Amino acid sequence: MNKYQSLALQLKQQICEQIWRSGEKIPSVRACSRQAQVSTATVLQAYQLLETEGWLVAKPQSGYLVATNIRQVIQAEGETPPPDAPPMRINDLLYDVFQRTKSSDFMPFSSAFPEANLFPQQELVRSLASASRKMKENSALTNLPPGSYELRRLIAQRYVQQGLSVKPDDIVITTGGLEALNLSLQAVTQPGDYVAIESPTFYGALQAIERLKLIPVEIPASVTSGLDLDVLEEKLAAYPIKACWLMTNFQNPLGYSLSNAQKQRLVSLLNRHEAYLIEDDVYSELYFSEQKPLPAKAFDPQDRVLLCSSFSKCLSPGFRIGWVVAGKLSDQIQRQQFLSTISSSVPAQLGISHYLLHGGYDNHLRKLRTTLQHRKTAMITAIKQAFPKQTQVSDPDGGYVVWLSFPPPFDCQKFYELASQANIAIAPGTIFSLQQDARQHIRLNYSYPLNPKTLTAINTLGDLAARCLRSESEASS
Amino acid sequence: MNKYQSLALQLKQQICEQIWRSGEKIPSVRACSRQAQVSTATVLQAYQLLETEGWLVAKPQSGYLVATNIRQVIQAEGETPPPDAPPMRINDLLYDVFQRTKSSDFMPFSSAFPEANLFPQQELVRSLASASRKMKENSALTNLPPGSYELRRLIAQRYVQQGLSVKPDDIVITTGGLEALNLSLQAVTQPGDYVAIESPTFYGALQAIERLKLIPVEIPASVTSGLDLDVLEEKLAAYPIKACWLMTNFQNPLGYSLSNAQKQRLVSLLNRHEAYLIEDDVYSELYFSEQKPLPAKAFDPQDRVLLCSSFSKCLSPGFRIGWVVAGKLSDQIQRQQFLSTISSSVPAQLGISHYLLHGGYDNHLRKLRTTLQHRKTAMITAIKQAFPKQTQVSDPDGGYVVWLSFPPPFDCQKFYELASQANIAIAPGTIFSLQQDARQHIRLNYSYPLNPKTLTAINTLGDLAARCLRSESEASS
Repeated sequence: MNKYQSLALQLKQQICEQIWRSGEKIPSVRACSRQAQVSTATVLQAYQLLETEGWLVAKPQSGYLVATNIRQVIQAEGETPPPDAPPMRINDLLYDVFQRTKSSDFMPFSSAFPEANLFPQQELVRSLASASRKMKENSALTNLPPGSYELRRLIAQRYVQQGLSVKPDDIVITTGGLEALNLSLQAVTQPGDYVAIESPTFYGALQAIERLKLIPVEIPASVTSGLDLDVLEEKLAAYPIKACWLMTNFQNPLGYSLSNAQKQRLVSLLNRHEAYLIEDDVYSELYFSEQKPLPAKAFDPQDRVLLCSSFSKCLSPGFRIGWVVAGKLSDQIQRQQFLSTISSSVPAQLGISHYLLHGGYDNHLRKLRTTLQHRKTAMITAIKQAFPKQTQVSDPDGGYVVWLSFPPPFDCQKFYELASQANIAIAPGTIFSLQQDARQHIRLNYSYPLNPKTLTAINTLGDLAARCLRSESEASS
Repeated sequence: MNKYQSLALQLKQQICEQIWRSGEKIPSVRACSRQAQVSTATVLQAYQLLETEGWLVAKPQSGYLVATNIRQVIQAEGETPPPDAPPMRINDLLYDVFQRTKSSDFMPFSSAFPEANLFPQQELVRSLASASRKMKENSALTNLPPGSYELRRLIAQRYVQQGLSVKPDDIVITTGGLEALNLSLQAVTQPGDYVAIESPTFYGALQAIERLKLIPVEIPASVTSGLDLDVLEEKLAAYPIKACWLMTNFQNPLGYSLSNAQKQRLVSLLNRHEAYLIEDDVYSELYFSEQKPLPAKAFDPQDRVLLCSSFSKCLSPGFRIGWVVAGKLSDQIQRQQFLSTISSSVPAQLGISHYLLHGGYDNHLRKLRTTLQHRKTAMITAIKQAFPKQTQVSDPDGGYVVWLSFPPPFDCQKFYELASQANIAIAPGTIFSLQQDARQHIRLNYSYPLNPKTLTAINTLGDLAARCLRSESEASS
């Protein structure tokens, strides 16, 4: 192959890989010659060849552009698309669920966020634009950890309105709630420490424990009776537990909340054993009853609770703004953050601050809660009609997920596979727990409107569940 | 080997790796039995063996602890004891430097970023506003890891223009360059692994190694001769080094770059020893010579280099957008990210994409480079006039920091304190290295204009340096 032919081949490949897109200018002959270390004559020959073959178009005064009908050109040449990614290893299932949730081909009942159009996108974007225009040159420095003072002040305000005594300086802004939780866990544990979690729990807790080489102590929890504080008390006595990572309101995936008395008991247990509570409280704004539930932090005079939350479930998943009410551990958390992500994105911090001040957050939340509550009722009704009668469905008082339980030997992973084949993504119980009986459960996001498409999907899931129960009971008999 | 013997061996290894430290409680017999999936009797046998051999001590009511004289036990067994874990001292100092840099009361010669008004704030904000308005409702999902396709494509384009073969799908967008580096290190190492770094090095590398319980192997580097690849070759032969975390262009803090031949040699060394290179290349756009230097990734057909970079040094520190060219490890990195910050901020990703397409990035970079080069010349001249004649000053060919070296027994931390009292923040050598001679150095950011205020600050630093050298030579005589 000549030099110019080989150069032309390289360029074709780059175009196939969309490095250069339809209609886009490619590097000048001179730039390409310098970079590829061939003569300008060779480059010109290559470009002319590609022009002849329809890949490029020469435009006077402006050089060579990629042809606008480039897709047809590529297909006509019989080029194959790039190969599929290699198969996945650990945490395969979790990552697979996440990928399917992302794909627009799937009905995303597995999603960890409410339906995207329930967020006040327009208002938030207006706030982002306004706040950006006022951004100062040194804003990157002044909004380094602990983060924008104004944003911390507005968050503290919301807690103070609930009767908590939270100061802006108690708060550290993070890249979403998950970073807040991870930094908190790192701040209070060393590898080899014991950490208590609910079973089932938010999968992020299981993963963090594995990554930080901690030892999980699972505390049983159920839809009907919530977290078993008696067992927690026993375990705290039996193991040198350093921290508990728990959800106190609208627990994911079960949906229960601890009562105030239980929250008080929880904190006093921790105080007795000098353990910390990492409180994951990302759903408390999405309550359906009279008023917003308190976090356990409200009963924490000794500053043992690291209260973590975010705007990702109520306002915008994509801004990646969360926080931790860290109190005396604030400095410790900031150090961890300074060494991992340095700070959360400044425009996102300022955009959300502006929205909290001017955008009508509380109005939005009121509407969001009403919608979610209606959708819950509709979805639960549909589920009960579509699923086999042995199915148990949770009826949470907030949030946007329901927990479905099936009699053994139901296998949620088999169900997950069948649902995926029908282009429906669900969250199998096994991503939430290390226990065997995790297989009998699935989690569904109910934040979608019950239109014909959703209803069909629910009915399909019901049929598949019946099939799973039937075939498994046949297999086991 | 019996089950219990092999378990005992595993535990010894973990103790050598300081997973369990002197005096620390190891997992209970029950916890270990569950984790290792062997009977409690087997675990008990293993623990008792280790007790007989002096590795463990049984403590009534509390289980087994690692012996407090464990270093001697390890040495007696002829095992090489691990190098001591780096003490926490750097962390405190580093955090203090960072706090002072942030404060508007201080002249921020310690800053890790160019002067704030060198960034195209106006244009970037316009791009952010335009991109925000076009944001779709599902943008949080479509820009989840690996991040915005358009942004990855535009980053790939810049590499392709340098002759590298990088595809959008090789790239993962991160919350700044530091997250890219940390995720990369996590992806290729386990606690207890050896990691080679330069000495002195970017403090983030030292901190990540400490946090992830890795063992640093320091490779000497100097302003004049760069990284000592002969020593690296020896160390790669002597230790099972899993990864090297290195800066190949305008190394922070020394300022040297590896030649292309050195980069080639580096990658071939790594290939021979199956080690990964985590390449920190955040300064390569800030070159003062003819053309942008290549990363070592350019010489990496076997995909052993994780090339990390960001927009924080060239465009905007506050947006927190970085990336890693992860190639075949892309999936691995995305999993790590999905479990720590989920994704980088979507508006920031879209804002930077828009700016890259429409904002005139290359024009901005040209101006930035010219300004930095002029400021370097002016600052070095001022430093040479103000500082004692024994002072050596680096003259880097890119970036925005100089490295000042003083004869022993200069103590940079004492100098740091004196400078702070004069409201000037500098970066003391001891945050960049674990070695004793780190005390003889300081790093200064030269991206500030040489106005009367800066000049006064430089002159003050010169006087303080003279005082330090004088008083210390008196003290030592």
